[in-house]
Amino acid sequence: MPEKRLILPVRPIFKPMLQISQRGLALPPSPYRRLTPYAEAARQRGLTVHPLNIGQPDIETPPSMLAAVQQADIRVLEYGPTAGYPSYRQKLAEYYQRLGLPVAADDILVTTGGSESISFALLACLNPGDEFIVPEPFYGPYNAFAIATGTHVVAVASHLENDFALPPIAEFERRITPRTKAILICSPNNPTGYVYSRQELEQLKELCLRHNLYLLSDEAYREFCYDDAFTSALSLAGADEHVVLLDTISKRYSACGARIGALVTKNKALRDVIFKLAQLRVCPPGLGQLLAEAAADLPENYFDHTKAEYQARRDLMVSRLRAMPGVRCPLPRGAFYVLCHLPVDDAERFARWLLEDFSYQGQTLMVSPAAGFYATASLGRQQMRLAYVVNQDVINQAMDCLAVALQQYPGRQG
Amino acid sequence: MPEKRLILPVRPIFKPMLQISQRGLALPPSPYRRLTPYAEAARQRGLTVHPLNIGQPDIETPPSMLAAVQQADIRVLEYGPTAGYPSYRQKLAEYYQRLGLPVAADDILVTTGGSESISFALLACLNPGDEFIVPEPFYGPYNAFAIATGTHVVAVASHLENDFALPPIAEFERRITPRTKAILICSPNNPTGYVYSRQELEQLKELCLRHNLYLLSDEAYREFCYDDAFTSALSLAGADEHVVLLDTISKRYSACGARIGALVTKNKALRDVIFKLAQLRVCPPGLGQLLAEAAADLPENYFDHTKAEYQARRDLMVSRLRAMPGVRCPLPRGAFYVLCHLPVDDAERFARWLLEDFSYQGQTLMVSPAAGFYATASLGRQQMRLAYVVNQDVINQAMDCLAVALQQYPGRQG
Repeated sequence: MPEKRLILPVRPIFKPMLQISQRGLALPPSPYRRLTPYAEAARQRGLTVHPLNIGQPDIETPPSMLAAVQQADIRVLEYGPTAGYPSYRQKLAEYYQRLGLPVAADDILVTTGGSESISFALLACLNPGDEFIVPEPFYGPYNAFAIATGTHVVAVASHLENDFALPPIAEFERRITPRTKAILICSPNNPTGYVYSRQELEQLKELCLRHNLYLLSDEAYREFCYDDAFTSALSLAGADEHVVLLDTISKRYSACGARIGALVTKNKALRDVIFKLAQLRVCPPGLGQLLAEAAADLPENYFDHTKAEYQARRDLMVSRLRAMPGVRCPLPRGAFYVLCHLPVDDAERFARWLLEDFSYQGQTLMVSPAAGFYATASLGRQQMRLAYVVNQDVINQAMDCLAVALQQYPGRQG
Repeated sequence: MPEKRLILPVRPIFKPMLQISQRGLALPPSPYRRLTPYAEAARQRGLTVHPLNIGQPDIETPPSMLAAVQQADIRVLEYGPTAGYPSYRQKLAEYYQRLGLPVAADDILVTTGGSESISFALLACLNPGDEFIVPEPFYGPYNAFAIATGTHVVAVASHLENDFALPPIAEFERRITPRTKAILICSPNNPTGYVYSRQELEQLKELCLRHNLYLLSDEAYREFCYDDAFTSALSLAGADEHVVLLDTISKRYSACGARIGALVTKNKALRDVIFKLAQLRVCPPGLGQLLAEAAADLPENYFDHTKAEYQARRDLMVSRLRAMPGVRCPLPRGAFYVLCHLPVDDAERFARWLLEDFSYQGQTLMVSPAAGFYATASLGRQQMRLAYVVNQDVINQAMDCLAVALQQYPGRQG
């Protein structure tokens, strides 16, 4: 009998691949760094590229704060307490108290930069799949924070035509679903420079109380309000359980590299949960806390000079921008950004053209196209953000470049 | 006609409460800090409480590393690059190269402590609902990291009877499901002190290659191996895409408070995704990086003294423990922990009794009951972890206390 041979069809063996997580793949590239390779290429061609694209202040870090680290007597750089050094929490509470805010040391959790306070708040206030509402344009990384924490940004548009004021409360209300757990605001705002008034914050508070939402308030630029007094969400009466302050020393003391922030809330149950999250990273950076603690000894008028400098820069930049045909520029009342409308086909294309195809007297400038600050794809295409974190001479040079560029740009409109 | 009146039943108005997230509420309290209030009370009663419960080294941070921060010339403490200072990444690559590991600066992402490298790895390698397998007992916070990242710990028991060696590969294989994405190991191990052999690591590698799993390797205690050479997962041939090294300078240089760690992988696609996660927190701490970078200038024999000191402490502690009737203590070959079996009803109860009801010559000791290191509820109830992070005199005093305590403890067994 001949051997019976079975002819089997060729079947691919199922072998799952080593995979990267979906949430990881979904992360957008940073809106701030997309143009960096073009800027580097321009510098290599010998151009001076004025960096108006990111919020890295050029103001010096107070030498007395650096000295506090440099003179500290440290034998073992030990783990610190999870919530931060008690002495620093106490001095930080006194800082808030001087601003009229009812903050005790126990209300404060020192964080590793403001960014950690955003992560902690989203993890503790929202379940995966939950939503938070944010006025757009907003700080670009909020999108990526949402992806990393399994939550969703729901945007409400604010408009350049009315200085990016708070959108009508009805617009928020329309977007509230059973999954909405928080409203996230930033005041003074990055990227618009808008500062919410007490009346606007009261409206938000009422909304949060009515719908049982957290009010997450990013106040990184608190000190830099040029025209009106600043109102903190922590000052809203009757909202103690709802308000979570997200803070940082980065901009306040020009100490971005220290990575010291804070999360402040009177909601003890929430704080207890966030404390357990914070235990995962054991403690915030010790050396940075020594630096931050020394801020308590700065002279009372420390911010006067810095604020006056930023204000002069703002006034200069806004007046130069407004003198350019077709540019529309609201007056930003706080932070150190200008968000303006350009007479161009596409601000992203224009920003790239500035780096690749343009120069004026050996110079050009790097800007942030505004599309990265919007969740709605159709918005912000003709807007850009400029940071006034360079001195007035540089601002003048950069504005000279921009004025010429807007005349020469092939995609000019209007 | 009499007015018709409708009598409605009283219906409660549905008003959702302000809620804390389920994941937040699910977080366990830190296994390390549960006994802290009892220790504080004991100290207030005037007792000396020897702190053998946590891994905070008493060895001094190298003065030259502190000096590097203290002598740095800083005008503006700026944001640094997301992946860490290039100069530090280069020196760190050279450190790995001196250990024979093929690491380039580009393979390294500097993190905010080892803890951040754990979070990043879980977020980038696992989707919500996915699982990673860990030999138990394990570093307690892994449980909370899983909750914070929406993933699940699946434990495989290792056993005191064979020094907590790697469990049989078949035990891992039995636990692999379509949701399994990674195996997480720690070598030298916290809490057991076990050091995986090359052979054990090769077995794990084969398993990971066969099932397309990541091998996440926490090597925080690399320098502290007392009996055999250390094998890094990064040295496993053919596993470049699979291996993710989780590292930290905390224990290596006694610099826990600096919060500087690293994530190292040759898997470029994974690294690119983790880089985008890292952009959320902009950069790791600047001052801590200056400190870490100065480690490159330590003398070549720097670890000799530290290692000899830890080894002498280990030998002392193990010999003292083994002399106590009913105590079973494997020889931990690395790290600075001993995990031993006690002749008691419940190690948690015993640990609390040590602080509340016991003293010997005005002293007592704080230990870590081992249940917090196990995922399986029935395991580790008669085990405790001791850290030999105090000098030999203190170890002797603490062991004197422990010997007496084990005689007096009402729940003594056997």
